[in-house]
Amino acid sequence: MTLKDHGGNIDQAMAQHGGAVSDWLDLSTGINPCAYPIPDLPPPTWTDLPTISSKERLNETAKSAWSCRGDILAVSGAQTAIQMMPHFAPAAGLPGRHAKILTPTYNEHANVLRLAGWIVEEVSHLEQLADCDLAIVVNPNNPNGRLYRPEQLVALLPHVGRLVVDESFMDCETGYSLTPDTDKTGLIVFRSFGKFYGLAGIRLGFVVASPKDIRIFNQLAGPWPVSGAAIEIGITALSDHEWQNETILRLRKDAARLDTLIQPTGATLVGGTPLFRLYDCPNAAVFQDRLAAHHIWSRIFPYSRSFIRLGLPGLQKDWEKLEIAIKSIEKG
Amino acid sequence: MTLKDHGGNIDQAMAQHGGAVSDWLDLSTGINPCAYPIPDLPPPTWTDLPTISSKERLNETAKSAWSCRGDILAVSGAQTAIQMMPHFAPAAGLPGRHAKILTPTYNEHANVLRLAGWIVEEVSHLEQLADCDLAIVVNPNNPNGRLYRPEQLVALLPHVGRLVVDESFMDCETGYSLTPDTDKTGLIVFRSFGKFYGLAGIRLGFVVASPKDIRIFNQLAGPWPVSGAAIEIGITALSDHEWQNETILRLRKDAARLDTLIQPTGATLVGGTPLFRLYDCPNAAVFQDRLAAHHIWSRIFPYSRSFIRLGLPGLQKDWEKLEIAIKSIEKG
Repeated sequence: MTLKDHGGNIDQAMAQHGGAVSDWLDLSTGINPCAYPIPDLPPPTWTDLPTISSKERLNETAKSAWSCRGDILAVSGAQTAIQMMPHFAPAAGLPGRHAKILTPTYNEHANVLRLAGWIVEEVSHLEQLADCDLAIVVNPNNPNGRLYRPEQLVALLPHVGRLVVDESFMDCETGYSLTPDTDKTGLIVFRSFGKFYGLAGIRLGFVVASPKDIRIFNQLAGPWPVSGAAIEIGITALSDHEWQNETILRLRKDAARLDTLIQPTGATLVGGTPLFRLYDCPNAAVFQDRLAAHHIWSRIFPYSRSFIRLGLPGLQKDWEKLEIAIKSIEKG
Repeated sequence: MTLKDHGGNIDQAMAQHGGAVSDWLDLSTGINPCAYPIPDLPPPTWTDLPTISSKERLNETAKSAWSCRGDILAVSGAQTAIQMMPHFAPAAGLPGRHAKILTPTYNEHANVLRLAGWIVEEVSHLEQLADCDLAIVVNPNNPNGRLYRPEQLVALLPHVGRLVVDESFMDCETGYSLTPDTDKTGLIVFRSFGKFYGLAGIRLGFVVASPKDIRIFNQLAGPWPVSGAAIEIGITALSDHEWQNETILRLRKDAARLDTLIQPTGATLVGGTPLFRLYDCPNAAVFQDRLAAHHIWSRIFPYSRSFIRLGLPGLQKDWEKLEIAIKSIEKG
């Protein structure tokens, strides 16, 4: 498996454009640059096998944070939940191997299913997701931020084997999450921890679904699916409502700041979430190269010549670095 | 999934016998009680997606530490490798779903395959493993320490689809590992990191196999199978040959010390590795309860009335606690 077509791989930027890791400002992901502070981790976090009760505390904390009516399971990142789907489907008794994915979107859903021999149909309208074993929507969508209301998605449930709603970027979109609807048959919601909390390295994500489906995911995940550190940090961060609320406000403000900063280049906003912005420009590859000349890494897409996605700078010096780069592009 | 029949679940001990976590000495696992010291973890360990180059550094370090001739993949614990097997087999083109496991052994191999609909035959002699899609040997074996020489296992290769050798407890048995033989077709070796290094909470293990098979495991694992902390700690610890050599000597000495300590109870040594000892006694459940009355947790097995397994105490006070308990059992 190659990581060629993912954000967050600063190796590739360095190979193409030089510089050391410390020279680069990585805006190629949608990860919050102002991370949740790592709490003290007592030694057993590292030394001991995670206990059932610590996993349950994490799951209960997440369940309460997201008002889940279904059951929940912590896994090692939303990506791990994606990796499970080809194996979940036969275990859950879904009759076929036919998936439909609302695209363009995060490419791993299609990738993982196709590698496992599934027929994957990419559709461009929500209602086209009907009539398949597995319908997949990323909501809000990556990279364009397209956001459906809960009732639009719930309406699909009678027409599919399972509806997977990947809510990896949902944390700022209060009121749009389907986690409170996970008592409904056929609905599976993925949540990411690392993006909003800025801690992608700990590998933590969640599957929310009916108790029956969660039992299957639990069997696929095995007894120790997440690290002790992920459990401890997850419990602390998911309980910290003050940090969450402040972060939503800050991210919204910073997203608007980024949009304003980009304006002079002529690139126009396509959409996004407070964690990343998608812009349209005449030639995305050229725009990426110009930013890379300033050691700023961005994300472009194999299916679009004009789309460029930027995450948010964090530190003041990072904003200034981007501002200088933008000014030189504007002049050029 | 229940954790009822695993070591390391001190929750269960507390529910049955009372006490707080801090009151208990947990000898129910085979995890080294003197853990490798956690190195400094720079902030990107937590915040960033693990890069390809950091994963490659970890894999190369492990490959060199174990003289692997095949390819290698880091996964989130040897358990995760076990969880992958039912999905690996069809992806690798194995014709059937018939596994044979040399038992008694670690129960998750059979558990995971049966849950995925495999026919699992438990056999008691090595040569009975022939003629199946997947043959599984834990070497050295958990819980009895039975250890096969490489050539005995290699001889099986022509007679099975794949031979999985779970070397979770191999670190002290220099010369017995099959990792140098992983250029041979059909051989898959699992290695654990957490047990020997005493860091079970970080969730790190490895699959070593032919490059073709590792490509399949890689696809099943996805782009970010292990945490940033696991990568950093793994690289440091697997390079530290001085610590490794000292630890092997200390574990061997401590295992002998434990055997001597147990002797007065009348329990006899069945076998083990330097990380755990299996003893035979008239009634293992009674022995477990007597130790539990002193807040010492042990491991007994559903398939044997007489086997009790003990891991090693670490701190001097833990040795003393066990000594006091043993003396009272001896008297009783």
